[in-house]
Amino acid sequence: MLQNIAICAFIITLLSMSMKWNSVLVWPTEYSHWMNMKTILDELGQRGHEVTVLTSSASIHVDPNKTSTIKFEVYPTSLSRDAFDAFVLMVVKKWERIPKDRIWLHLSEMQEIMWDFSDCMRNMCKDAVLNTKLMRKLKESKFDVVFADAIGPCGELLAEILKIPFVYSLRFSPGYSLEMHSGGLLFPPSYVPIILSELHNQMTFMERIKNMIFALYFNFWFQTFNLKEWDQFYSEVLGRPTVLLETMAKAEIWLIRSYWDFDFPRPLLPNFDFVGGFHCKPAKPLPKEMEDFAQSSGEHGVVVFTLGSMISNMPEERANVFASALAQIPQKVIWRFDGKKPDTLGANTRLYKWIPQNDLLGHPKTKAFITHGGGNGVYEAIYHGVPMVGMPLFADQPDNIARMMAKGAAVRLDFDTVSSTDMLNALKTVINDPLYKENIMRLSRINHDQPTKPLDRIVFWIEFVMRHRGAKHLRVAAHDLNWVQYHSLDVIGFLLACVATVIFAITKCCLLCCQKFAKTGKKEKRE
Amino acid sequence: MLQNIAICAFIITLLSMSMKWNSVLVWPTEYSHWMNMKTILDELGQRGHEVTVLTSSASIHVDPNKTSTIKFEVYPTSLSRDAFDAFVLMVVKKWERIPKDRIWLHLSEMQEIMWDFSDCMRNMCKDAVLNTKLMRKLKESKFDVVFADAIGPCGELLAEILKIPFVYSLRFSPGYSLEMHSGGLLFPPSYVPIILSELHNQMTFMERIKNMIFALYFNFWFQTFNLKEWDQFYSEVLGRPTVLLETMAKAEIWLIRSYWDFDFPRPLLPNFDFVGGFHCKPAKPLPKEMEDFAQSSGEHGVVVFTLGSMISNMPEERANVFASALAQIPQKVIWRFDGKKPDTLGANTRLYKWIPQNDLLGHPKTKAFITHGGGNGVYEAIYHGVPMVGMPLFADQPDNIARMMAKGAAVRLDFDTVSSTDMLNALKTVINDPLYKENIMRLSRINHDQPTKPLDRIVFWIEFVMRHRGAKHLRVAAHDLNWVQYHSLDVIGFLLACVATVIFAITKCCLLCCQKFAKTGKKEKRE
Repeated sequence: MLQNIAICAFIITLLSMSMKWNSVLVWPTEYSHWMNMKTILDELGQRGHEVTVLTSSASIHVDPNKTSTIKFEVYPTSLSRDAFDAFVLMVVKKWERIPKDRIWLHLSEMQEIMWDFSDCMRNMCKDAVLNTKLMRKLKESKFDVVFADAIGPCGELLAEILKIPFVYSLRFSPGYSLEMHSGGLLFPPSYVPIILSELHNQMTFMERIKNMIFALYFNFWFQTFNLKEWDQFYSEVLGRPTVLLETMAKAEIWLIRSYWDFDFPRPLLPNFDFVGGFHCKPAKPLPKEMEDFAQSSGEHGVVVFTLGSMISNMPEERANVFASALAQIPQKVIWRFDGKKPDTLGANTRLYKWIPQNDLLGHPKTKAFITHGGGNGVYEAIYHGVPMVGMPLFADQPDNIARMMAKGAAVRLDFDTVSSTDMLNALKTVINDPLYKENIMRLSRINHDQPTKPLDRIVFWIEFVMRHRGAKHLRVAAHDLNWVQYHSLDVIGFLLACVATVIFAITKCCLLCCQKFAKTGKKEKRE
Repeated sequence: MLQNIAICAFIITLLSMSMKWNSVLVWPTEYSHWMNMKTILDELGQRGHEVTVLTSSASIHVDPNKTSTIKFEVYPTSLSRDAFDAFVLMVVKKWERIPKDRIWLHLSEMQEIMWDFSDCMRNMCKDAVLNTKLMRKLKESKFDVVFADAIGPCGELLAEILKIPFVYSLRFSPGYSLEMHSGGLLFPPSYVPIILSELHNQMTFMERIKNMIFALYFNFWFQTFNLKEWDQFYSEVLGRPTVLLETMAKAEIWLIRSYWDFDFPRPLLPNFDFVGGFHCKPAKPLPKEMEDFAQSSGEHGVVVFTLGSMISNMPEERANVFASALAQIPQKVIWRFDGKKPDTLGANTRLYKWIPQNDLLGHPKTKAFITHGGGNGVYEAIYHGVPMVGMPLFADQPDNIARMMAKGAAVRLDFDTVSSTDMLNALKTVINDPLYKENIMRLSRINHDQPTKPLDRIVFWIEFVMRHRGAKHLRVAAHDLNWVQYHSLDVIGFLLACVATVIFAITKCCLLCCQKFAKTGKKEKRE
């Protein structure tokens, strides 16, 4: 009888494994994050999965008209598209203005930005999950997994409501706080530079102090003060006391958009995979006019200049400084720029409102890349082996360029203060000093030489979670411990108490013996 | 000019990458470790690499006559094969007799065993590296990488002498001390059970105390007292002050023979890959007589009983207890046993001096596996999905069975004290309770469902190290820090001193103010 039950259970398991498991619900974020995620969704679509993206009516880049393999579920939100765009640009501007030389001001202004961003995200999330019609539709769709960018919370709440597992994609969270508090990752501050600190992994004593301050700040302060409103909102929606960080900790897999060609090696956990650079592809041919311009550069080659998808313009004075430097190099320059044509623009420089960045970086004539240091662009430069001149503006851009500098593949300039001469020298250095090309080629080889391609690993893990309804075997038991237990404070306290008791008992015994001997001595003396 | 240098450097790099890089020098260990390693070496051989195994004349299992794809370099050693065999068996016997219920006796006896083993390994290593003719030959052979089992040091010394990178294979070191002190792995004692403690990852308060004691013991005591002789020996050979653990820390990659189907998930580092179960293969057909016997079992199926490659015999009384239990089950039993035929042996049980373990575990008739819990056997049971009755004897065997019990795939018995009834009940449980089959099948699915097969990953990483002359991009900066820096004690001290100074200054100011006010008050009163 029991044997038959065993066989039945086995058959049921096999059947459940062969059943349909290909329906993915996606909670995306905007700008470069979406460009990144779309690569994954397209791949999932091509492999026969049903991909549905939940997006608000205010969405800027998540455009239902621009894709065919993905379905979109657009929900109305009180924010207009223009207001959302203006909000994001305001956040960027605020971040760019943060004074980097005063650590406490730096941290407190950064926190204010996070709060603004967090409030906006929460409103978007509210508009989705409190939309009963939408939620009913999603429940009826019987999704197998939620795939979300962890930087914009809500994906885990959707997964809780729909009672399905979820997988995260993440570039980084401020100070690695999510990876630490929800993911369970360890970040020893002695050799892991906390993100946004702009430090290397080889730190001096003073740098390790700065890193420790960043670690402490993000560890205690940030998480205690910022997340209460999220906890309250999640508790209301789910009808039980819920903590955002604990809900996020239920993620089956964390797909971190970084790898050891770009980042500094650090401790990880079995349910973390580092898939940086998965969006990079071999270059496609350039538009004819651009190709002709590139070929006209002869042996000198081409320099590509862009400050990313969010910045296509800049103050006139800055544009003239850059144009003047670029006019002095023998290379041809392809510059993504949407402002007034600079007066100092050289004949070797052409302006474009949009450029095919990956195809340009993969072009054999390309010698250098002037970049703001966004994760996607830096990865394309690594993939194609192009040394960089970095002019970071905000978010992880300074850290990205710091990493490339530490690996000898980039020179850093300050966007606001750099002179023409400095820019000229920086360009000459990365183009003519063979070490920069050597170093970026080394990173490129590391990037290309992995046991499995990052995009294949991403698809594998999302499919794995759908096949097995989760990946609990990769989850550390740390998630079941409270703070005191996790840090073994109760155990250490108990052991110290034991040691103290033993020392006390021994001391007491010794004292008693001494007293006894002393008494006997006195007695003998008296006798 | 500089540009030409860049191009030349690039061409040289490309040329060096396309040059020959396929010569592997192997430092193996014995028994099941060798059986494991041989699977890798055969695969390397089949993929066109030149594999040379350095082995002593006393070697027991590393037999030059038993293979065709691998070359052997046999060096003379003072120890005879019989003496070495006797020594290993003596170590095993000693370990089996360790009292498990008294923690300090347990730990100190275990340490004595490690020392005996360590001394023997050092003598073997001395015989190799002090053999000048052998060393000259090895230098002339221009190997690209050393591949060694980290449990028997010497591989890293050979790599230092030959100035080439090295890769480790490792099941575990006592208390994870090598993985921690040389590999840089973190083992938070609150949720990572220290190996040899026989604990699970879900620990009670008392179990966490036991785990902390094991962690502290292996952390401080073991490494401080046991390794001095190795340091001295390495320093003499290399002619410079050398520390064993620091030399081992230079390993490019650590291939750990475990995975999350078997082990509990825990923190890792980018240069660690978990490749457990790589030796498992689909079952080949059984010898005809064995196949007929298995088929004769009908729907009841077969039970496989073996205590591993080191134990083929046992006391008569024990054999009779086991035989009597086996005689009472409806299954047929295939028992690897080389002693006197037990009087209580049932008609359903057949004794064999040797069995094709993997083929038997993969046989569709196999219902259960009675095992000592050796890593290789447990992995084969996971691979083929066969629930276990474990009778662990020594080393990691109790921990392996503890892991299988925690995952609901095994029942544990005590070899020395188990009665026939207990064994009968245990067998009935794992065969008839469907949960055991379900659980082991779940582990089996995890084992089969990985982005890349473990054996492919092993070969990939060995080839990677040969192609790139190392894998430094995966190495954490922790290796460059001393103990104080690594634990941030200097930083914490400095910050505490700062805080103390500030508190002191504020208190002093407050006191001064109070005194001033008090004086003014008195003055006013007097007036």
